[in-house]
Amino acid sequence: MTDAEALADRVRDGDLRFHELEDHADADTASAARRLLVEAQSGASLDAVGDYGFPAEQADPNIENMVGAAQIPMGVAGPVTVDGGALSGERYLPLATTEGALLASVNRGLSVVDGAGGARARVTKSGMTRAPVFSVADIVEAEALVSWVRDNEPALKEAAEETTNHGELLDVTPYVVGNSVFLRFRYDTKDAMGMNMATIATQAACDVVEAETTASLVALSGNLCTDKKPAAINAVEGRGRSVTADVTIPRETVEERLHTTPEAIAEINTRKNLVGSAKAGSLGFNAHVANVVAAMFLATGQDAAQVVEGSNAITTAETTPDGDLYVSVSLASLEVGTVGGGTKLPTQSEGLDILGVRGGGDPAGANADALAEAIAVGSLAGELSLLAALGSRHLSSAHEELGR
Amino acid sequence: MTDAEALADRVRDGDLRFHELEDHADADTASAARRLLVEAQSGASLDAVGDYGFPAEQADPNIENMVGAAQIPMGVAGPVTVDGGALSGERYLPLATTEGALLASVNRGLSVVDGAGGARARVTKSGMTRAPVFSVADIVEAEALVSWVRDNEPALKEAAEETTNHGELLDVTPYVVGNSVFLRFRYDTKDAMGMNMATIATQAACDVVEAETTASLVALSGNLCTDKKPAAINAVEGRGRSVTADVTIPRETVEERLHTTPEAIAEINTRKNLVGSAKAGSLGFNAHVANVVAAMFLATGQDAAQVVEGSNAITTAETTPDGDLYVSVSLASLEVGTVGGGTKLPTQSEGLDILGVRGGGDPAGANADALAEAIAVGSLAGELSLLAALGSRHLSSAHEELGR
Amino acid sequence: MTDAEALADRVRDGDLRFHELEDHADADTASAARRLLVEAQSGASLDAVGDYGFPAEQADPNIENMVGAAQIPMGVAGPVTVDGGALSGERYLPLATTEGALLASVNRGLSVVDGAGGARARVTKSGMTRAPVFSVADIVEAEALVSWVRDNEPALKEAAEETTNHGELLDVTPYVVGNSVFLRFRYDTKDAMGMNMATIATQAACDVVEAETTASLVALSGNLCTDKKPAAINAVEGRGRSVTADVTIPRETVEERLHTTPEAIAEINTRKNLVGSAKAGSLGFNAHVANVVAAMFLATGQDAAQVVEGSNAITTAETTPDGDLYVSVSLASLEVGTVGGGTKLPTQSEGLDILGVRGGGDPAGANADALAEAIAVGSLAGELSLLAALGSRHLSSAHEELGR
Amino acid sequence: MTDAEALADRVRDGDLRFHELEDHADADTASAARRLLVEAQSGASLDAVGDYGFPAEQADPNIENMVGAAQIPMGVAGPVTVDGGALSGERYLPLATTEGALLASVNRGLSVVDGAGGARARVTKSGMTRAPVFSVADIVEAEALVSWVRDNEPALKEAAEETTNHGELLDVTPYVVGNSVFLRFRYDTKDAMGMNMATIATQAACDVVEAETTASLVALSGNLCTDKKPAAINAVEGRGRSVTADVTIPRETVEERLHTTPEAIAEINTRKNLVGSAKAGSLGFNAHVANVVAAMFLATGQDAAQVVEGSNAITTAETTPDGDLYVSVSLASLEVGTVGGGTKLPTQSEGLDILGVRGGGDPAGANADALAEAIAVGSLAGELSLLAALGSRHLSSAHEELGR
Repeated sequence: MTDAEALADRVRDGDLRFHELEDHADADTASAARRLLVEAQSGASLDAVGDYGFPAEQADPNIENMVGAAQIPMGVAGPVTVDGGALSGERYLPLATTEGALLASVNRGLSVVDGAGGARARVTKSGMTRAPVFSVADIVEAEALVSWVRDNEPALKEAAEETTNHGELLDVTPYVVGNSVFLRFRYDTKDAMGMNMATIATQAACDVVEAETTASLVALSGNLCTDKKPAAINAVEGRGRSVTADVTIPRETVEERLHTTPEAIAEINTRKNLVGSAKAGSLGFNAHVANVVAAMFLATGQDAAQVVEGSNAITTAETTPDGDLYVSVSLASLEVGTVGGGTKLPTQSEGLDILGVRGGGDPAGANADALAEAIAVGSLAGELSLLAALGSRHLSSAHEELGR
Repeated sequence: MTDAEALADRVRDGDLRFHELEDHADADTASAARRLLVEAQSGASLDAVGDYGFPAEQADPNIENMVGAAQIPMGVAGPVTVDGGALSGERYLPLATTEGALLASVNRGLSVVDGAGGARARVTKSGMTRAPVFSVADIVEAEALVSWVRDNEPALKEAAEETTNHGELLDVTPYVVGNSVFLRFRYDTKDAMGMNMATIATQAACDVVEAETTASLVALSGNLCTDKKPAAINAVEGRGRSVTADVTIPRETVEERLHTTPEAIAEINTRKNLVGSAKAGSLGFNAHVANVVAAMFLATGQDAAQVVEGSNAITTAETTPDGDLYVSVSLASLEVGTVGGGTKLPTQSEGLDILGVRGGGDPAGANADALAEAIAVGSLAGELSLLAALGSRHLSSAHEELGR
Repeated sequence: MTDAEALADRVRDGDLRFHELEDHADADTASAARRLLVEAQSGASLDAVGDYGFPAEQADPNIENMVGAAQIPMGVAGPVTVDGGALSGERYLPLATTEGALLASVNRGLSVVDGAGGARARVTKSGMTRAPVFSVADIVEAEALVSWVRDNEPALKEAAEETTNHGELLDVTPYVVGNSVFLRFRYDTKDAMGMNMATIATQAACDVVEAETTASLVALSGNLCTDKKPAAINAVEGRGRSVTADVTIPRETVEERLHTTPEAIAEINTRKNLVGSAKAGSLGFNAHVANVVAAMFLATGQDAAQVVEGSNAITTAETTPDGDLYVSVSLASLEVGTVGGGTKLPTQSEGLDILGVRGGGDPAGANADALAEAIAVGSLAGELSLLAALGSRHLSSAHEELGR
Repeated sequence: MTDAEALADRVRDGDLRFHELEDHADADTASAARRLLVEAQSGASLDAVGDYGFPAEQADPNIENMVGAAQIPMGVAGPVTVDGGALSGERYLPLATTEGALLASVNRGLSVVDGAGGARARVTKSGMTRAPVFSVADIVEAEALVSWVRDNEPALKEAAEETTNHGELLDVTPYVVGNSVFLRFRYDTKDAMGMNMATIATQAACDVVEAETTASLVALSGNLCTDKKPAAINAVEGRGRSVTADVTIPRETVEERLHTTPEAIAEINTRKNLVGSAKAGSLGFNAHVANVVAAMFLATGQDAAQVVEGSNAITTAETTPDGDLYVSVSLASLEVGTVGGGTKLPTQSEGLDILGVRGGGDPAGANADALAEAIAVGSLAGELSLLAALGSRHLSSAHEELGR
């Protein structure tokens, strides 16, 4: 009987609880015991899940009740030259995905972008938010709370920043709905995606609010943050990084390599990404930015649930006065970090290394900015490639060949 | 010199192209050669990425330019008893994530749900969509096209269904904006998520439209589908599965195990998930459904970019006339499949096995329905747990302990 | 002492109630008495308000507690030639507004449209909706209710149509959120805007639902109608009439009369009406359609609160292959009628007469269709004129001259 | 032959143009001539339209091509006691509408509110916006423009404020989408609604931007303002006044006068106004605020097209710890003024007099604040009354009796 079997038996006997195994064995044994229990209950074999390539203990900050790992195929696209505010030079982009044809599409786009001299990219706004909701008696108290907040932002800043070594509170914006008052705290979280940092700092600030006013904290997140939900407040005001990548592609390149014209791409973009999304009541005016965001998030240890906000993106395409093609992608709320979260896991940190953005940047925040720019460039390539494919009517045949 | 090194050299020499290596070597060697090239270009080590646990050839339908795999920690929560339309009995739920505290939170929620007799779940609407956009001369032609479509739906159905063994065209809905006409095709794609099936079938139908009318196809996807963008059309009309899970929890359980009250949870849900999301201009009226959707998508081979639509969910909480707690989560547009896409990969198919929903269901579609119900139940647990945590003000301290 | 003074005294004495005066005097005297009371309370003089041009009794279906009338200046723009599905020939458009420069702007636009041979217009979808919300025990009952509704639509249709001479129930669409079930009833209400007709018919259908199922009616309107609120469901699916007007204007006309180019107008439309509205999280992708909708609503006795849904409009502008300008406006949810509501009031019915659409049409519904087309043409002219003004940078100077 | 007939003949002869008649006769004669021409063209009689109660010249700032006036029945509801930030004491509320039952509904609501001691009301945010869109070469220039704006806000403020005696530029917020840069200028426009003031001032600021940077002005309004379109940016950030009214009503009053309970009203509000609007993809989480906004706008000379933004309102209802009913209405973007626009017209200025808010306030802005609070209180009464009516299932029968 192996250690794992023995551990599993103790759970069956009611001696141990399923989620407490790490207290009674090393993490790998605990994980193995859990697989045995799940296999017995479900009839599944978990051999592949159990064949993970890192000490289970290393995933301790990232998961509980671990049974192993999901393996997502990873590839690279590029290389592409980037002229960014934080990222400069030539890079391969790592993408992890199970959607056939995606990587080929991005790769084709990057090749055309690179042939045009590369992509420009800039982070135009930055800040991670957390927005607690307080209840007050009525609108008279709500107004008083708003005034108090405006007068006491320094005290809130002091309390919030005591909880963090790196984070800075940038501003606090109040929103009033009846006797609910939402305070949207916005932080510079440097190279961290920053959700946990913002949560902890905001709790400290909320303690001050509760101590000094009549307001009562209802929820540390009041959904005006907005985290992991599609929300106009993020699309309009941004969250994490607001980042744009763009490129100008000579007409000849469009015609010879993409087999279409600047005019056709501009028309498709208008009818599909602008008018179509308008009619759909959408917050995403793009073709498939989420594909690239998801794949690069998985490859670099980002939070997969934040693909939601990452998809708040607008693609534009136009013919320049010289007859060339200008394409841009602006992601309003890309939440990324190069420290913390999943970034320390082995495959994910290697993903960051491919981009040269692992860990804290110099200056602080520069690596997360660079990661944001890289994702924007990948998104730009994906948009360009898909628009061109639609233009030349390749979509379904590409899937027939590659997507299977 | 290994085969991979030799292959890499041929790329450096300009003899082979980076994305064509699989034509000149087996998939694992090609992947190894690519790692060498990327390592040389970036300075990264890709040992962990290269330590994947399946033959690279097996990922051929899922990725191009493969260099290895990202490994995402996987755990299980539960077990929980489900009373579903397609899924019945006790199940562990598999989740792959890098966000510490998530799995513990879902597990705590499932434990409470299970203690209350389990969760109910039902798929209330189903259908995968693809919406091409056509251009016409003017509104007179647009009106004529709409009439033609209404009169010729059988012909479109016949053309579309000739391309697929399993799919059925359910209906075609026209939308007009000036001289752009969007036709939203909706299919029953059984156990497949169905995006590719719908794309190919719709192309065939579009060929008929172009042959029989004056309309010209601009893009096979006109963004009214809407795929991988937050869009009201999905939140309102659904896409993939519309699925709800709910549970009634005795007051005593709420008080003793969650350390709060039905009234407190109902109030938090109203101020945060309803009023807060309303003020945020959101399409997601929930706390963190995307977390569970993302983690279960990764564990079961779903498309990570479709977490976007998965987050179109509404959570409700109320005190019942008996003083107990009723909680529900309704996901409007959960796009899932148990065949195709990433579901055949080794770890992902084991994830499906944990739920007992791998492959085609009986009747066809039943497995994908069951997967949708399982994700809804996991989401319900996540919502319950987070609302309770907010209620008892544990959020930031939980992250301090678990999230790190 | 006049009759009105005597009546006012009886209110002051507590002998009569302010809102019951019509039970004790003719409507004009009641109105006069009310003015006396309001003047005394507020210090205001209500001479102008009291100087209305119709017997107060005639407004009895339209208002309670009447004190007089607001007078809104009315003008006409045009005439313009319309090639519509229901409206053909040359028309002046009546507009009532207090916004200086609006009428001149529409007039300029119509003049250009007319010079280009007139506008095309078509109603592409039609139907007035009412969506009650029911509560059920849980998702199992919700699913059962949805099934019941699908199986019993004929019974609902019969009950609904018994309450109306003209209305027809077109379809019923269920939407489920937890233990709330919304049923969206859609009616053909012919020449009536139809909100009241739909409400009464839906109440009858709800009685059947309550009698035959376990569902309990919570509210006859569950806000999925959606009436008088901005809502994507209307922008996507339509409510009232979905109507488009468009026009093709020769390049020479654009240059000579509008002092700009097709390219400039197309670019402004893209950056402002499409990209700008996208970034604003808007449901209205137009410049100022609401201005025309509001002014024509006031001139023809429509419900001013429904300007909200009327503003769900998308404007497109493009250069045609021949180098001319194509402009369209598509209003998704224009709720109009030519019978009932305010249409019988003297000035409003004259407004309808200017368009030749007063009362019931032949066939039934044709007059309301024609009114919708007229408003769409007016909107088109307003869009064209404003886009051109922006193009030639006239906006602020126009307001300096005309807007005052 | 009258002067008007002579004037009309000159138009028929091609001697004068239809829109230039005021240059050749007094305004009343011009209006009469125009009626003759329209009557001849359309066959309509315009006697009622021509029977307006003010010198046509007085409407010169408000309309062009005048033919007369639309008369909208006006009534009053109340009186109600208001505890506002700017409005205090007892007021009748003037409403002009053609929708039967509306005034009675508001009146019933106000009566209950007044019986509960009156309503509280507060303006919580204020500012009129105008957002021009500029084009730049690419994202590098876009970033440079954003930096320039942040560094040069004083210069923009100086230029903007030179154009106005009263207005103050509060702030300028940049938004970037590719090579389009939107600058949202926000002004304190005191007692004016301020759209024209903001437009003129922003033009002056744009001249500075164009003179000092490479940016080119595309449109003085880039739709991020957002004026007269439903838009999340207004619902989230406000435009004009953000104003809330609320009230606490004793349980006995709810039961005796409204024939329902606090719990029933809270449940209806949740299922209809929150969950229903959520499912509808709405920006309006209320029952019929637009009705009151429209009616009070018409009665007080506001811009009827801005009812659109006025409908961005959230209604909340809850049972207090004491078992009473708390109801609130928060209007995010109510655009009102007591000077300029239609406020000087005779009936409209009397409407303002009923509220005691005509003309400039003391301090400046106080009258517009007071008007906003009055409209919020009217909206609150309308919401309360409708929710109660739904609660006691009176809606359709009320329409049968009153709405006709």
